[in-house]
Amino acid sequence: VIMSDYFGRLRTAIARVHAVEGVWRTRGEDRLAALTKPVGSLGRLEWIAARLCAIQRSLSPSASPRRIVVFAGDHGVTEEGVSAYPASVTAEMVRNFRRGGAAINVLARAVGADVQVVDVGVRTELEVNASAVSFSSRRVAPGTRNMAHGPAMTEEQLGTAIEVGLDAAETAAADGIALLACGEMGIGNSTSASAITAALARLPAASVTGRGTGISEEVWPRKVDVVTRALRVNKPGRDPLTLLRTVGGFEIAAIVGTYIGSAGHRIAIVGDGFIATAAAWIAAELCPPFLDYWFAGHCSTEPGHRCQLSNLRQEPLLNLDLRLGEGSGAALAMPIIAAAAALLSEMATFDAAHVSRSYEERSDIVSRG
Amino acid sequence: VIMSDYFGRLRTAIARVHAVEGVWRTRGEDRLAALTKPVGSLGRLEWIAARLCAIQRSLSPSASPRRIVVFAGDHGVTEEGVSAYPASVTAEMVRNFRRGGAAINVLARAVGADVQVVDVGVRTELEVNASAVSFSSRRVAPGTRNMAHGPAMTEEQLGTAIEVGLDAAETAAADGIALLACGEMGIGNSTSASAITAALARLPAASVTGRGTGISEEVWPRKVDVVTRALRVNKPGRDPLTLLRTVGGFEIAAIVGTYIGSAGHRIAIVGDGFIATAAAWIAAELCPPFLDYWFAGHCSTEPGHRCQLSNLRQEPLLNLDLRLGEGSGAALAMPIIAAAAALLSEMATFDAAHVSRSYEERSDIVSRG
Repeated sequence: VIMSDYFGRLRTAIARVHAVEGVWRTRGEDRLAALTKPVGSLGRLEWIAARLCAIQRSLSPSASPRRIVVFAGDHGVTEEGVSAYPASVTAEMVRNFRRGGAAINVLARAVGADVQVVDVGVRTELEVNASAVSFSSRRVAPGTRNMAHGPAMTEEQLGTAIEVGLDAAETAAADGIALLACGEMGIGNSTSASAITAALARLPAASVTGRGTGISEEVWPRKVDVVTRALRVNKPGRDPLTLLRTVGGFEIAAIVGTYIGSAGHRIAIVGDGFIATAAAWIAAELCPPFLDYWFAGHCSTEPGHRCQLSNLRQEPLLNLDLRLGEGSGAALAMPIIAAAAALLSEMATFDAAHVSRSYEERSDIVSRG
Repeated sequence: VIMSDYFGRLRTAIARVHAVEGVWRTRGEDRLAALTKPVGSLGRLEWIAARLCAIQRSLSPSASPRRIVVFAGDHGVTEEGVSAYPASVTAEMVRNFRRGGAAINVLARAVGADVQVVDVGVRTELEVNASAVSFSSRRVAPGTRNMAHGPAMTEEQLGTAIEVGLDAAETAAADGIALLACGEMGIGNSTSASAITAALARLPAASVTGRGTGISEEVWPRKVDVVTRALRVNKPGRDPLTLLRTVGGFEIAAIVGTYIGSAGHRIAIVGDGFIATAAAWIAAELCPPFLDYWFAGHCSTEPGHRCQLSNLRQEPLLNLDLRLGEGSGAALAMPIIAAAAALLSEMATFDAAHVSRSYEERSDIVSRG
């Protein structure tokens, strides 16, 4: 990937991300095998726990404190009539996030995560008054341009949006965050995510475009047509930064920055829905070892989400038929990751608890001895 | 189902369980539709939330306090060599539970549930000294008899074991428990659960018998043979109490009692693995409306578990390849149910948050108006 000067910080951040060391995963697995349960009986929880060992280079990895950063941005493509809601809802929902009344606020509280809301390009400027959750105004522009007619943003805007994400990762690292997720809000952004996914998967728009927040059967063909036109007009190919610039969104670019920046700080990341996973795919294209730090939180009902996850070779932790975004699926996956971490630190070993081993393990020990 | 005098309290408990009222589910759905998210976008979380409304007859249902009751009992069938671990592990693990070092202790803490351990028939009598978690000794007998040669227990023993469970439900109700799960510990009990499942599903033993805590490929045919022999020797048919008595276990019977008793107190119940779900199936046979109060927590790797869940027409909340029991899968599902409850109490409505409705809902309102 060739990068212009606008991406200097991104280039540095990518260079900081190293694949985890297999030896830490093995050490984690050995530790798990010594705990009072049949070997492997906690299934994917053990797989998570061993991955956390490798991410944190520790046999007692932590999953606290945890944070969900919600990036909001508007999309010029909404003028094509591709959404179930008016574009004004982006700003209205940001106000709702700030007052603590949205689903992500409730879910984050329920799972012990804090929420940070970042305006990375909402159309209307938001009030800077006090809010119940952390809010920062980092507006790149009042929404992207309509990708059906040309690039959604300039290269400079893209660089800036990614840096907003890199900054969020720096803040998370400074705050000692162990488990991080990104959420998004942006009416029109499932159209962007569909375009990114169609291009990366080399599939026709129709097979990865869904109903978003709930468009009718009548509106769906129009959305498919807009995705197809956006890819035809912009000809982004499969280059990740060109895709982000031409058919992406400010919030999607900010998530890419947060993901890569967080991986560089060895922070475990929980993936969210279709839009955030489009960002994960871009991040993986830019920086393959990033995926060592990323857990697929859930699979939504958007048809393109399953396609993204299978291309990334990730099995989601949850399948709850969600289609909200905001970080909701990632929030719900956090307790599972936290539980996996707790096993390593808190469970007794067979030896310490004087629990007998299985017949098979005993014969293994005898034959090894 | 005809019941002898040993089942007087069970009969009363069954009569207390009423199907939930559909009107409360509808009220819950209406409330969910007014909250600031696209209608239905929280998928199964909304389905859980509406079910909780119906269980608790409230639009702000609670999922706290929560509890996991772990019943332990030994199985005479272990003398057939059907387990990966020696039978002494049942008692050893009960000591581990009491010291707080087992997986279920860690997972319960992680999800904010308390743990109660009940000895309903461990072979060796356990010390009555202090323990880190609540422990009660309610031993029906020092383990069941070998079901491969005849009934696992007498009718009186079965009645007593069920009453231990009914007592646990009474205690939970007195303690105001909103969300309850049962776990189990009993070397040999997956052989019991396989026999119950084969009989209820009218399937050959081989198709519902798995590796339990991890028997080898060589031992598996012996386990299948023992299940087949137990059903041939005892001829239990499909009568739920006869099945429990002849091929069940004390801990499985206690779970049946806890499930039915808790449903009678309108406590939401989270199902666990293969053994606990055998108890759920028995409970549903004895008392069909019980299922209105029961959430399938997860699906394990035991082949018979998927069979049980599909017969009960339940989709599990989690698929994490667990095969531990103890209540571990139920514990991991609790945060999802708690999150669903929190949405109803804590999310803002469209009107209160001044968020615009979708175009479709607005035209619905216009056309209805």
